[in-house]
Amino acid sequence: MAAPPNRPRTDYGSAGVDTDAVEAGLAGLVRHIRTTWPAATEGLGAIKGRSGYFASVVDFGGMGVAVCTDGIGTKALIAQMTGRYDTVGIDCVAMNVNDLVCVGARPVTLVDYIAVEQAEPAMLEALGAGLAEGARRAGVSIAGGEIAAMRDVIKGAVPGAGFDLAATAVGRVALDAVNTGAAVQPGDSIVGIASSGIHSNGLTLARRVFFERAGLTVADHVEGLGESAGEALLRPTYIYVREALELLASEVPVHALAHITGDGFLNLTRIEAKVGMRLDTLPAPPPVFAVLQRLGGIADAEMYRVFNMGIGFCVIVPPAHEARAIEILGGDGKACRRIGTVVEDAEERVWIGQAGLVGRAGEGFVREDAAPA
Amino acid sequence: MAAPPNRPRTDYGSAGVDTDAVEAGLAGLVRHIRTTWPAATEGLGAIKGRSGYFASVVDFGGMGVAVCTDGIGTKALIAQMTGRYDTVGIDCVAMNVNDLVCVGARPVTLVDYIAVEQAEPAMLEALGAGLAEGARRAGVSIAGGEIAAMRDVIKGAVPGAGFDLAATAVGRVALDAVNTGAAVQPGDSIVGIASSGIHSNGLTLARRVFFERAGLTVADHVEGLGESAGEALLRPTYIYVREALELLASEVPVHALAHITGDGFLNLTRIEAKVGMRLDTLPAPPPVFAVLQRLGGIADAEMYRVFNMGIGFCVIVPPAHEARAIEILGGDGKACRRIGTVVEDAEERVWIGQAGLVGRAGEGFVREDAAPA
Repeated sequence: MAAPPNRPRTDYGSAGVDTDAVEAGLAGLVRHIRTTWPAATEGLGAIKGRSGYFASVVDFGGMGVAVCTDGIGTKALIAQMTGRYDTVGIDCVAMNVNDLVCVGARPVTLVDYIAVEQAEPAMLEALGAGLAEGARRAGVSIAGGEIAAMRDVIKGAVPGAGFDLAATAVGRVALDAVNTGAAVQPGDSIVGIASSGIHSNGLTLARRVFFERAGLTVADHVEGLGESAGEALLRPTYIYVREALELLASEVPVHALAHITGDGFLNLTRIEAKVGMRLDTLPAPPPVFAVLQRLGGIADAEMYRVFNMGIGFCVIVPPAHEARAIEILGGDGKACRRIGTVVEDAEERVWIGQAGLVGRAGEGFVREDAAPA
Repeated sequence: MAAPPNRPRTDYGSAGVDTDAVEAGLAGLVRHIRTTWPAATEGLGAIKGRSGYFASVVDFGGMGVAVCTDGIGTKALIAQMTGRYDTVGIDCVAMNVNDLVCVGARPVTLVDYIAVEQAEPAMLEALGAGLAEGARRAGVSIAGGEIAAMRDVIKGAVPGAGFDLAATAVGRVALDAVNTGAAVQPGDSIVGIASSGIHSNGLTLARRVFFERAGLTVADHVEGLGESAGEALLRPTYIYVREALELLASEVPVHALAHITGDGFLNLTRIEAKVGMRLDTLPAPPPVFAVLQRLGGIADAEMYRVFNMGIGFCVIVPPAHEARAIEILGGDGKACRRIGTVVEDAEERVWIGQAGLVGRAGEGFVREDAAPA
């Protein structure tokens, strides 16, 4: 999952509720973690790239090995509520490989970690089917993993069916090709690729809206959605590896890649370049977001902070290469378009034109007319 | 954690209770996972080494990248019961790097995954302190990680303090130096290095014995132990990376390395060579095991299947190199001695001389006088 506001600039991610408490603990934890980083910035073990980016890159002796870890969070509860376990493995792979490719790395393999309340063979096999399908879509192998049966540690939405699903993706990137968004400059085009829905972020809020506030069940057909609440929330996260790798291999100079997860478009502020982003040609958010906002009575600022709002991955390229980038990125079949422009802004703000919002890392979004001049 | 009996021969690990159910689910899951392995046995992404070994090795384009993932299991509950969170991070690192070095890999970096019932800053910082200490002992960096706050997924022994701690270790090994125990032959010496206690395996049984059957609290001093139950169960897992790497770098031909976790000495049967192991010079198990056996009324066969019984890591070398191997392995200060000999045995059995036990992978141990001739 991506980081909530106020995250320290580290590749440490965090997810779920208790945002401030998570961040306070995260800061303390990260202080210790960073003491393990070699002082040397060259040679075996040196940490490359940018602290605070989507994945870490480590020098494995002349070759860069990119690594990142993430889980599906409370999407596991939706799987339990619907009794369908064969798709969240796709989300688990997606959350990791979509982050990994942002540093310019080619995802190569993955290991998964499954903690279960009790081992239920059919459930474990279904989780494996999803993981394998995700691996196929990402073009990676699953080299191994771990299953831990811990009835005293794991619980869930259905008695006995509790589980947690996470993974670690490992990839390869040339040390001189690590992408941290340093080349991004004002005038660059921001290209967005459609998400498949809410992906694996904002599930806690979405569950509250559908199942508590609106009193729906996962099987209930939701007006304006054309599908059940369970179907809408369980739809697998898109995997953007193929099109991203194709773009990276093309003649297009890729200034940055950004996986849009929790924090929404504020993920764009993680790039190294100190610039602003004006998102003035975003597509209208897909129905699931409008329905969640209506049923939950959620403000625009909260919607854009918690959800991806229809865009799951962004790429930043020079304007002269925008058309070619869209052609390549659209090749995998997902909707793709220019959604905005990089602008000069020392405060590194993100503007959501259609919603009249302006946001900053660590602060979320506010209405532009309410923002200090 | 290591694999319980009946584990399929895969690098997939599993831990905890429900052994048979875990194994049934594991088998189904692994069938799917293996469909992601490239058909090619050479080139980027190819899976090297031995399915069923301590870590996986993937071809990263001429260089081997070793990867494995594991967690601390229910040792997290001991941390909660004692209110001490700054040591289990060491166990988390240990469980991973001790596996990784078995394939002959040099551990380079690690990412951790922390799932918490609710984010408690002091607890998270303490977990980070332990992870950092473990990383220092293993000589690795912690490149990144993830914190997921999921009150609907995680529970624990103390309300609000529930957490799960896992990690993934990544290392480097020359593709022509991947060690899977293929060179092991009858007559080889089995050298064992002492464990620090029960490490991170058998906690479920140990908790049942101390806190249910014997009715102790973590603070209770345990007769014959010279320390409290909490201290005995929380003692951090030894990390064997430094001495193992020194041995691998020496002139000693290292035929195999084995991390002794769950399944105890049956971990020795994971090596590629089809041989038997006669452990006839094992040291007497440390007090904690005798106390657990006495208080729990546990049979020898069960003790040797669940616990490491005092030996945390084994190395197999030709007899002519035994003395030098012990000299090098003892250099890190842990007790080290010859514990047995490799013998011809098509059934790949393990004999525990001092206990009169014989065991086989997937079957655990039985009394030798009760075993079929």
